[in-house]
Amino acid sequence: MKVKSLMDTKFLKIYPEYSIEYTAELMNKTKRFSTPVINKDEKLIGWINSIDIMVISDKSKPVSSIMSPVEDVILLNEEDPASDAVKKIVEYKVVSMPVLDSEKRIVGLVRNCDITKTLSKMYDIPVYNIFKSLMGELKGISWDELMESAAIVTKQTTGEEITGKEYEVRIKNSTFGQAIWSCGGLEKFFTGLIKIGEVAIARKVSCKNVIKK
Amino acid sequence: MKVKSLMDTKFLKIYPEYSIEYTAELMNKTKRFSTPVINKDEKLIGWINSIDIMVISDKSKPVSSIMSPVEDVILLNEEDPASDAVKKIVEYKVVSMPVLDSEKRIVGLVRNCDITKTLSKMYDIPVYNIFKSLMGELKGISWDELMESAAIVTKQTTGEEITGKEYEVRIKNSTFGQAIWSCGGLEKFFTGLIKIGEVAIARKVSCKNVIKK
Repeated sequence: MKVKSLMDTKFLKIYPEYSIEYTAELMNKTKRFSTPVINKDEKLIGWINSIDIMVISDKSKPVSSIMSPVEDVILLNEEDPASDAVKKIVEYKVVSMPVLDSEKRIVGLVRNCDITKTLSKMYDIPVYNIFKSLMGELKGISWDELMESAAIVTKQTTGEEITGKEYEVRIKNSTFGQAIWSCGGLEKFFTGLIKIGEVAIARKVSCKNVIKK
Repeated sequence: MKVKSLMDTKFLKIYPEYSIEYTAELMNKTKRFSTPVINKDEKLIGWINSIDIMVISDKSKPVSSIMSPVEDVILLNEEDPASDAVKKIVEYKVVSMPVLDSEKRIVGLVRNCDITKTLSKMYDIPVYNIFKSLMGELKGISWDELMESAAIVTKQTTGEEITGKEYEVRIKNSTFGQAIWSCGGLEKFFTGLIKIGEVAIARKVSCKNVIKK
């Protein structure tokens, strides 16, 4: 995934000759905390922030007089990996970042709320789907057998008495995000799943052995 | 994980009788885009935003004249699950949210950048650790056997010729986040992991059979 698939290509364009007053009005109307200042060639020349505007008394001056220079702006390139956007948001605690193309033209903005949305979407995968994948891999194990194995592992790890059917109900409305938070971390969640797969295989093998005997 | 473990308990307190000018100065000094307005009992009575302040010309008025009323503020309770904070940030696209205790006093703020940090930290888990957990579960399988199985699965799925040692080098610097982005999703990553475990077990079993024979 690249930065360009995270960015918003619709953004407020402020030109350096705009007055601070007009810039403030535009930002207020579009609900922008900060926005890029660009020239006629769509090249980024600065950055303007509502925090800086709100303490200015003479708003008739051009916005260029109070913008942050381009050297101080946290930038992204459209071909950068999306994980770079996450790293920069976390490191610099910015609300949004401009994205440039190979010719240094601004082509979009990556906003913190869009990153949160993308990250949280990954956590929104139903646990149910992960179990379906697990079943697909464990060839010959039925859904009911998998749920029973999950109930056995739950009993072993938490002491809780639960049936396979009850386990199924529990995971039906649970997401990956909720599961890792309640397990106490990603590694524990994976370990639990692997254990379930292992128990399912072990039960299958022991059944076959019984039949063979 | 609860909201209270995500929140920042140090935040800027604005009282309703503060002038807009003084509020703007305090917010500028502490670099806050928005902040709570509270009364003497620490109860939340409104919310103030740099976007609203920057278009005000007469800043001598009290901040209460332009704050958003408490009914319009997106709130969290300290005992809410942390996932509620993520959901609200994504739904309402806010930069930060006040957190209340059971007596409706404000006890902290949850900021979007803190949520991004927490979410991204989960993605920063080294793939190496996940394989170590997998090995712990697959009793009797050595690290080298696991890496060889991973190389076999890689060959099966991508056609790429890779040795167990090369696979080990690859995962050494890779995080869970990078892995799921490069696999094309969590389910595919997980399916691959299960496949690797399965191949490792199958090879072990077939070796034992050979020895038995």
